[in-house]
Amino acid sequence: MQIDILTCLPEIFNSFLNTSIIKRARDKKEVNIIIHNIRDFAQDKHKKVDDYPYGGNSGMVLKIEPIVNCLDYLKSIREYDEIIYMSPDGELLNQKKINSLTLTKNLIIICGHYKGIDERIRENFVTMEISIGEYVLTGGELASAVLVDCITRLLPGSISDSTSALNDSFQDDLIAPPEYTRPYDFRGLKVPDILLSGNEKAIAQWRDIQSIKRTKKNKNIYLNKNK
Amino acid sequence: MQIDILTCLPEIFNSFLNTSIIKRARDKKEVNIIIHNIRDFAQDKHKKVDDYPYGGNSGMVLKIEPIVNCLDYLKSIREYDEIIYMSPDGELLNQKKINSLTLTKNLIIICGHYKGIDERIRENFVTMEISIGEYVLTGGELASAVLVDCITRLLPGSISDSTSALNDSFQDDLIAPPEYTRPYDFRGLKVPDILLSGNEKAIAQWRDIQSIKRTKKNKNIYLNKNK
Repeated sequence: MQIDILTCLPEIFNSFLNTSIIKRARDKKEVNIIIHNIRDFAQDKHKKVDDYPYGGNSGMVLKIEPIVNCLDYLKSIREYDEIIYMSPDGELLNQKKINSLTLTKNLIIICGHYKGIDERIRENFVTMEISIGEYVLTGGELASAVLVDCITRLLPGSISDSTSALNDSFQDDLIAPPEYTRPYDFRGLKVPDILLSGNEKAIAQWRDIQSIKRTKKNKNIYLNKNK
Repeated sequence: MQIDILTCLPEIFNSFLNTSIIKRARDKKEVNIIIHNIRDFAQDKHKKVDDYPYGGNSGMVLKIEPIVNCLDYLKSIREYDEIIYMSPDGELLNQKKINSLTLTKNLIIICGHYKGIDERIRENFVTMEISIGEYVLTGGELASAVLVDCITRLLPGSISDSTSALNDSFQDDLIAPPEYTRPYDFRGLKVPDILLSGNEKAIAQWRDIQSIKRTKKNKNIYLNKNK
């Protein structure tokens, strides 16, 4: 899978790309993540990537030329399944959306910053707008890191134990059950005895009940949503 | 504001802490963000932070002792408003929640990893569980970076133009209006003429209408939610 990320803050991705599952997936060539500095695609002598908004407003807006120049360059190399813009008014990300994106081959992700990008990019070039949640971030960089992390961990070979992803929260619309590990007794706080019983069937049943309880308690909205 | 983050992957935060608004807020002493490696609080000779789940299951679980040792240490230094655990089954983050967290003084954020943390930590030590969205990440690190970014950008002095944050999406339950910047004409794609009219009142009205249109179109659920 190829993921090209367009940003005016490329350095923010350094540690993310070189840690944990993302690093492993890159090393294994499961995913090729390339960060593009949109400043490199600005054509004026000051390499300007942002400017004041028309109509007067606070904040700066990312200009159309550097971003479209970069899109033109990438699209001349390969075909892309989607050109995604991370935005608080995009479609709310959920696990189903991530599952479907893992089936694509080439993705472009545009990170907004300041007050966002020139609207003409969204209207004419972007094919999908994604929001990671109903809150405002400094820019699209962390949002795109979230998206890339969610996708990458599901690619074959990323997680060493692939059954681990199957019992994640949300994969079956249920929240994962509670987990405990050694020691059995910590300052008087003990692990539920059922988990030490060795009775696999009873343990599986207990976990199912806990999952359903949690799903009902914490997200009574969830089972009826995203269907 | 003091934010202490507990993680088994401290290096993932390096670039995030040293870029953009987070760096500026730290330099200005608006926020003091300290990353704690829970491995430093493990007491066995192998500095083990995770172990197999009781009852048999795929994945690893973060152990209780290193995390609680770190909490004990931090709580001996100062009082904390909240001990937050980032989890997909926590309360869904929204802008109102972020606004309220900006009023706190000291926060601890625990990042889960693998299959999460020993449930006894959640039951007995955590005071608030937050989910950034209904999807599964590799760990709580990116989720906590999202939370810290959302909070920090609202602290006085973080954004150079503070009125900019006031017309963000969500601050008034409305999605921000479209923005345009130079050039006026890009490959025949033009900026709406109203924005060049110089008529401030008409521009403000147009923006309000665009905001309401967008809010209705993209999130017809939003106005009735999070109230």
